[in-house]
Amino acid sequence: MHVVITDIERADPVATAALAAAGVATVHEAQGRTGLLAPRLRPIQAGVRIAGPAVTVSVPPGDNWMIHVAVEQCRKGDVLVVAPTASSEAGYFGELLACSLAARGVHGLVIDAGVRDVRDLIAMGFSVWSKCISAQGTVKETLGSVNVPVVCAGALVRPGDVVVADDDGICVVARDQAGAIAGRCAEREAREAGVRARLRAGELGLDLYRMRERLSERGLVWRRQQTDD
Amino acid sequence: MHVVITDIERADPVATAALAAAGVATVHEAQGRTGLLAPRLRPIQAGVRIAGPAVTVSVPPGDNWMIHVAVEQCRKGDVLVVAPTASSEAGYFGELLACSLAARGVHGLVIDAGVRDVRDLIAMGFSVWSKCISAQGTVKETLGSVNVPVVCAGALVRPGDVVVADDDGICVVARDQAGAIAGRCAEREAREAGVRARLRAGELGLDLYRMRERLSERGLVWRRQQTDD
Amino acid sequence: MHVVITDIERADPVATAALAAAGVATVHEAQGRTGLLAPRLRPIQAGVRIAGPAVTVSVPPGDNWMIHVAVEQCRKGDVLVVAPTASSEAGYFGELLACSLAARGVHGLVIDAGVRDVRDLIAMGFSVWSKCISAQGTVKETLGSVNVPVVCAGALVRPGDVVVADDDGICVVARDQAGAIAGRCAEREAREAGVRARLRAGELGLDLYRMRERLSERGLVWRRQQTDD
Amino acid sequence: MHVVITDIERADPVATAALAAAGVATVHEAQGRTGLLAPRLRPIQAGVRIAGPAVTVSVPPGDNWMIHVAVEQCRKGDVLVVAPTASSEAGYFGELLACSLAARGVHGLVIDAGVRDVRDLIAMGFSVWSKCISAQGTVKETLGSVNVPVVCAGALVRPGDVVVADDDGICVVARDQAGAIAGRCAEREAREAGVRARLRAGELGLDLYRMRERLSERGLVWRRQQTDD
Amino acid sequence: MHVVITDIERADPVATAALAAAGVATVHEAQGRTGLLAPRLRPIQAGVRIAGPAVTVSVPPGDNWMIHVAVEQCRKGDVLVVAPTASSEAGYFGELLACSLAARGVHGLVIDAGVRDVRDLIAMGFSVWSKCISAQGTVKETLGSVNVPVVCAGALVRPGDVVVADDDGICVVARDQAGAIAGRCAEREAREAGVRARLRAGELGLDLYRMRERLSERGLVWRRQQTDD
Amino acid sequence: MHVVITDIERADPVATAALAAAGVATVHEAQGRTGLLAPRLRPIQAGVRIAGPAVTVSVPPGDNWMIHVAVEQCRKGDVLVVAPTASSEAGYFGELLACSLAARGVHGLVIDAGVRDVRDLIAMGFSVWSKCISAQGTVKETLGSVNVPVVCAGALVRPGDVVVADDDGICVVARDQAGAIAGRCAEREAREAGVRARLRAGELGLDLYRMRERLSERGLVWRRQQTDD
Repeated sequence: MHVVITDIERADPVATAALAAAGVATVHEAQGRTGLLAPRLRPIQAGVRIAGPAVTVSVPPGDNWMIHVAVEQCRKGDVLVVAPTASSEAGYFGELLACSLAARGVHGLVIDAGVRDVRDLIAMGFSVWSKCISAQGTVKETLGSVNVPVVCAGALVRPGDVVVADDDGICVVARDQAGAIAGRCAEREAREAGVRARLRAGELGLDLYRMRERLSERGLVWRRQQTDD
Repeated sequence: MHVVITDIERADPVATAALAAAGVATVHEAQGRTGLLAPRLRPIQAGVRIAGPAVTVSVPPGDNWMIHVAVEQCRKGDVLVVAPTASSEAGYFGELLACSLAARGVHGLVIDAGVRDVRDLIAMGFSVWSKCISAQGTVKETLGSVNVPVVCAGALVRPGDVVVADDDGICVVARDQAGAIAGRCAEREAREAGVRARLRAGELGLDLYRMRERLSERGLVWRRQQTDD
Repeated sequence: MHVVITDIERADPVATAALAAAGVATVHEAQGRTGLLAPRLRPIQAGVRIAGPAVTVSVPPGDNWMIHVAVEQCRKGDVLVVAPTASSEAGYFGELLACSLAARGVHGLVIDAGVRDVRDLIAMGFSVWSKCISAQGTVKETLGSVNVPVVCAGALVRPGDVVVADDDGICVVARDQAGAIAGRCAEREAREAGVRARLRAGELGLDLYRMRERLSERGLVWRRQQTDD
Repeated sequence: MHVVITDIERADPVATAALAAAGVATVHEAQGRTGLLAPRLRPIQAGVRIAGPAVTVSVPPGDNWMIHVAVEQCRKGDVLVVAPTASSEAGYFGELLACSLAARGVHGLVIDAGVRDVRDLIAMGFSVWSKCISAQGTVKETLGSVNVPVVCAGALVRPGDVVVADDDGICVVARDQAGAIAGRCAEREAREAGVRARLRAGELGLDLYRMRERLSERGLVWRRQQTDD
Repeated sequence: MHVVITDIERADPVATAALAAAGVATVHEAQGRTGLLAPRLRPIQAGVRIAGPAVTVSVPPGDNWMIHVAVEQCRKGDVLVVAPTASSEAGYFGELLACSLAARGVHGLVIDAGVRDVRDLIAMGFSVWSKCISAQGTVKETLGSVNVPVVCAGALVRPGDVVVADDDGICVVARDQAGAIAGRCAEREAREAGVRARLRAGELGLDLYRMRERLSERGLVWRRQQTDD
Repeated sequence: MHVVITDIERADPVATAALAAAGVATVHEAQGRTGLLAPRLRPIQAGVRIAGPAVTVSVPPGDNWMIHVAVEQCRKGDVLVVAPTASSEAGYFGELLACSLAARGVHGLVIDAGVRDVRDLIAMGFSVWSKCISAQGTVKETLGSVNVPVVCAGALVRPGDVVVADDDGICVVARDQAGAIAGRCAEREAREAGVRARLRAGELGLDLYRMRERLSERGLVWRRQQTDD
């Protein structure tokens, strides 16, 4: 029942890099508003944007044993995704585990639980998105699994899927969709570049997106403020 | 039923500037501890203090269409106030809308829901107070209203009222009270300046505010710690 | 029933300084994973680590009168610990009280409620760990007590106990245990220094902590990914 | 600043009775999905549906003095609406106040805070919708106001407005709209009666509401499950 | 992208009935403590225990259009599982939809959002597990999907999987595991029946489960209370 | 460090019975508004009021081993109080443990975590106050302590203290104060009986408690509603 899957297939690195450049909001839109993790996960640092293949870990509540097991499965550029099987606010992860992952070139951690040693993590440039910050220690008593599909903060993450994370949150892209979604992100960004220039010049979205007619059809009425408003 | 009120009356700009200088905590006290929005709204940036007339937007949950409509009603110095008609954590607002508002000189956004592109918003100096940060996209399907009275994070905001926002949160001042409240803020600050100097010099609030007698009357007792305490 | 205990005994200053150096996560582990306050308390500043004897204040919900009383009981190096008798999000504490405490050399504040004037508090270097930031004013009508045992954010704090606080949260150490726990922290840090060097060099925790055998005994299985995984 | 408005105008009793019969969900729909209080307010009893003119009370957090003042302003059939000026979980209201209100023929209480003595309240048939149940006592120290407009659980309630409450929550109807909304409720119920009969008979909403074409236009596709789904 | 999968395969009815008889806690244990939905979903009724194949619906926040589409896919004994793509507290489901489902013999509804008309739903014996009760209406503007895998309250549910629900919550069992898990439930119940009789007779779990030795090995110490405890 | 204290002293049974008769709200008031557990703990049953000496259990998050140990320390009339050392929503307690406790005459359970098998617990008349209902299983791996002082839902509970619980929540009374508090409860109830009769007869609290003068002194103003109110 408890298993560690080794040698997982990972998403294409070129597509992954393109998704990192696009960022969470664009990726989320480009794949039809799917794949977003719940906004309760927040970065402990500011201004960082990463993407990498997921190494997934299913852990019991309050037990971080399997994270130690997962380290061995990580490669340069991966993102570790930790999902407790029940809600937990414990501090599963700290500076020593980060040293271990950094030594293997891991980009960052996404965890639906707590982390600690956050000052050290920030100082060493190890990026984390977590549910909370908590010094509460965990035990090493009960097995879980590594590189099985997990539900993390409400989203299904499969090993090797691309995890994109920045100040806006985290979005997951299926491994075999990475290239297609990266392409759609590029299209979206090209489209938005034109819109951005026009909006900055003062053109209204109402006109640019031709919204006025549809708004009126739906019944929207404009009228000047009167004294009794 | 759905309406956009144009050409709203705005609070006096001199009083508005004075309220900005006073800040949220002082304004809240000066108007008898009223007008405060719930503390779940937090700034995405640090160290910013603004005040401006409210352009209000009532939006359906998960639908940001009316924000596009509201942009046209905004002038230099306004603060956009967005209130969903039911609780929502969606990302109603991002960098493109901010470009549009910045082009019109809008000071900032107060929203009882989520925003996205926060790194870009901070980089461009557009100030935001929001319930959460979320990349979750919204639709443009259902009407709302612009410049009607709204309840935002538990406080009633009318179009043209002064919205004061800083690191402590957000406080709203009725349009026709702006001057009077600004005056009371000045009095309060003058009073506090004297108190501050004495407290910094080590004088106790107990003495300065003459609290000892009233405390004793109420029954407070001072006694030295004993071994069994 | 309402009392102010004066001249409390404080934990040993040398042990207190050692606990400050160790930080919250290490102290929490060194005393058997006890003493941690709930993670809902967060610092308003980043990168600060302090420790000091607790001056405790039991306050009614929404009433900060006793904080004024507590100031007089504080000495250089103390940490003020404020615990409402029922849940409150009011802003009990602001810049004027901080001036007063700073004048006495107090290190910081731990409060299971709100604070305000946070920009000023940060600017003046007064450290705070709080449940929320709120400008909501409090009254001065009802008594509480100073320097009695309090439950703050789920942890029992006695006057004179050592309060350690940093970016990871807050941990309390019993006054008469400060030296012993500081000793255990030193041992733990020495042990971790060796581990850290080996992990940074790429050695796996699985090997370093000799986990493989016990994992296999419990039934963990490693296998390569297959096409249908 | 603190005021008790006496002799308020109340909504029409016939319209009020019609709104009670319609219930919260229907009233909310009939007035364009407005007026709903946040779902955090829940009934302490099951199966009760009431409506009555609001007597509103603005109270400080943790202070129930003004409820005693408000009792005198209540008449037979009224609903007392209590809104703290800041979030509170205290037990503002218990059996003695209920005796007092029941003696005046008051229908029930809506409060964005806590109540206590709930077993007694249920036994005496006094209906309550509250944020929580809490035995935590309140003080009687600070003034508020009676029969001023209040924001209760996110909705604006004016004295004399109709408050409708049942197992689904609470909805407020503006005093001068009560008749019009009651009329729309009746229309809605008539329409739904026909729909209900057809749905019970097994007709599909897809057909009854003619949704199939619009769904297809939007791009919805039906297909049989395949072995790899 | 938006699809309705028809003619899904459903779990074996005999195994499903056995899982209903076992109940949520037993099923959750029998499959290795997996499959549990988050405890924020609560029943609106008391004392009901059901199990049935899942018809799954992925819906946008605040939009219930796809529930109308899903009704047609339901058969006698099914359980409808509704998962919004982002957090929502809206009232997606009420008495009319329940009439429609009841006409098709559907057992109940599991929804990670709100429902309304709860008094009617209880009266007609239609069982619901939901995140909240809310009269807030939803729109019918945006597509979703029916009978695709969904994440509902943190658990992955595939169409045709068995959904077991009772007063303890909800647990999902993979379609092809239903028989095996039902078998393990029976074993577990047989084992517990013997234990129950001995516990009721006053035998201690400490002895029955032979815990004393292991507790002592771990270092647990028993000692009589002393006067200073 | 981990200990089971046996043969604890228990509060006087006569005083305990008197406290049960008084109920939580009265006991809480009679001891100066102290001792209340946080209102997040709710009964799983309705209409039950109990009091008994506390047998306390400190448990790790997600680990119920020590509850099995605690059973042996329970006697007829006790109330088991379970406090996790960190926040947990797991289902620590179910029907088998209840059988064991019922066999020893235990009155009920107070737990700042989850319970399961609630239908069975209600059917067998075993009373529970808990933070949530959850089927999530716990492990038996890590030690805790029995009959040491614990902080449960924000209140300090010592072994042998009286725990009073009813529909309003839970209140704890120090063992050596039980008689004194029971006496004050009786006084309070006598006083309230007179008040109740007068309130039921329609006398106003404003007059009965002589509040009018003090309200006016504080500045409260009564005035009739005007057309522009």
